[in-house]
Amino acid sequence: MEKATMPRNLLEKSSRILLVSHVQPDGDAIGSLLGLGLSLRAKGKSIVMYNEDPVPASFAFLPGADLIVQDAGDISRFDTLIVLDSGDAERMGNKAAELKKIPAILNIDHHPSNTEFGTHNLIDTDAASTTVMIWRLLKEMQWTIPGDAAWGIYTGIFTDTGGFRFGNTNTEALSIAAEMTACGVHPETVGTNILGSYSFSYIRLLQKALASIRLCADGKLATMTLTRAMFEETGASEEEASGLVNYARYIAGVKMAVLIREKEEEAVLPWKVSMRADKDIDASAIAVAHGGGGHRAAAGFSTALSPDAILNMLENQIQSQRL
Amino acid sequence: MEKATMPRNLLEKSSRILLVSHVQPDGDAIGSLLGLGLSLRAKGKSIVMYNEDPVPASFAFLPGADLIVQDAGDISRFDTLIVLDSGDAERMGNKAAELKKIPAILNIDHHPSNTEFGTHNLIDTDAASTTVMIWRLLKEMQWTIPGDAAWGIYTGIFTDTGGFRFGNTNTEALSIAAEMTACGVHPETVGTNILGSYSFSYIRLLQKALASIRLCADGKLATMTLTRAMFEETGASEEEASGLVNYARYIAGVKMAVLIREKEEEAVLPWKVSMRADKDIDASAIAVAHGGGGHRAAAGFSTALSPDAILNMLENQIQSQRL
Repeated sequence: MEKATMPRNLLEKSSRILLVSHVQPDGDAIGSLLGLGLSLRAKGKSIVMYNEDPVPASFAFLPGADLIVQDAGDISRFDTLIVLDSGDAERMGNKAAELKKIPAILNIDHHPSNTEFGTHNLIDTDAASTTVMIWRLLKEMQWTIPGDAAWGIYTGIFTDTGGFRFGNTNTEALSIAAEMTACGVHPETVGTNILGSYSFSYIRLLQKALASIRLCADGKLATMTLTRAMFEETGASEEEASGLVNYARYIAGVKMAVLIREKEEEAVLPWKVSMRADKDIDASAIAVAHGGGGHRAAAGFSTALSPDAILNMLENQIQSQRL
Repeated sequence: MEKATMPRNLLEKSSRILLVSHVQPDGDAIGSLLGLGLSLRAKGKSIVMYNEDPVPASFAFLPGADLIVQDAGDISRFDTLIVLDSGDAERMGNKAAELKKIPAILNIDHHPSNTEFGTHNLIDTDAASTTVMIWRLLKEMQWTIPGDAAWGIYTGIFTDTGGFRFGNTNTEALSIAAEMTACGVHPETVGTNILGSYSFSYIRLLQKALASIRLCADGKLATMTLTRAMFEETGASEEEASGLVNYARYIAGVKMAVLIREKEEEAVLPWKVSMRADKDIDASAIAVAHGGGGHRAAAGFSTALSPDAILNMLENQIQSQRL
């Protein structure tokens, strides 16, 4: 409770507030900015919503998205910085050092790795999204959630729960989503904009990515290989590739899905290997043995081994873990 | 309100109840059977849950799914029939005529086309799913929703709203979903079982289907061609192909997506053409001109034209409709 009353005092006293979320923003980063930023603005606060990177096209439909700036101007004029959905201060991007000079820093986040870099820290690793925490804060302050802010809150929940499919989809997340629809959010509009439209270049990249899937170790291991040539041939962007590996991960029986990705030209270790494993496999042990790191369930490393050699190595590793 | 009190009296008086849902059951058909059937059983009623077709594998994880029978036995022993999610009595399947002899028939459905064939009819075309209507009925009767029944209610909402993405996703649907998670439903388990697992044969068929996509008429027309050889080479089933055309339909800018599918060997008209068009295109006019039929937005026909000739014809049609 103490942690939750601190931001209340801070927010009531603050008058010139800069809100920032992490670079390469996802739905929770954009949704948090809009959910809290537009609520503060409705309370008469002077706010600027800032992200170093532009709002991705799939989130441009959100009310207020056009207010998010990539240049915060003279930073000395702000009395308070609110950092959203960012595990550490560096996730703010190139201006992090300058931004940290703002006198009061409220850090609102749900990542387990959060470094509590703020002068005030509101961290809940059980929250389904950072926008869930913003909803709680607004409720505690007895502020009405403006209709435009509701879209951001809904979107953060929608994207961080994988469209209400991941394990963090809980009663609170669904209840808040329901409340946001009562505030005017259209779930179909959110779903269609964020998930429901493909570029033809994405379809072509997906086709090549699927053709690259190799299933081995008795169907327990699935690898997907993305080369630079695939991006060149299809015209797809790096951003469009972000969810592709799920097609390997969700093949029935697969215990470890691996994305093997070719790096920029002339890299010393040209392949980046990202592993997603279920509870029976320790991906971090494999990563550490190849100079990488991560967690048991999600780990990675870079290597000069060829994709074929990587596959053989992983197959041996899985067999040595006796799965 | 009158319509809602009728089933209350009926359900309280009934003691030997047969519940049935439509053939080729989807999530709402199975979920309705389980949501109401298991609730009635918890109230001490003698119930049989029946569907002419087996429970699809993706719904077999639902508590009580193993209680759904494909043979209802001697039908004369039932005093009440509850027909769920079925627009007309024939949707019950081959036994429809016999089932209609049961003295009291409670028809619970949300399809606009419902023929009100029951002795008691509870129809709400605004309900997101039939399980939403079952939830309302249980609430009105002040019955506690058993944990096992909650899974069925959640599943009907989840599938009929397209996983909370379609236009029928509203405050009520999300609120009930939230309440069902509080009753013990795990959204991730539902999502993973119903949507989140692919067979490798499906992945291989998807890859071939994507490779077959052709985009023409300035990106307004997308065709996907599925041949018999693709099924033979991949080992995928007809059932697995059902949603593939959505990959063509949801390409940005596409106004008409067309699935061109090769029929069984030795068909006189070997290609079946299914069109899904947005509001600017009249697909039924094209279908009728080729001896087929359907609606403006969804229509089809069979033809001896080759896939290339079909594509050319469709391209000309779209251009003649001046789009």
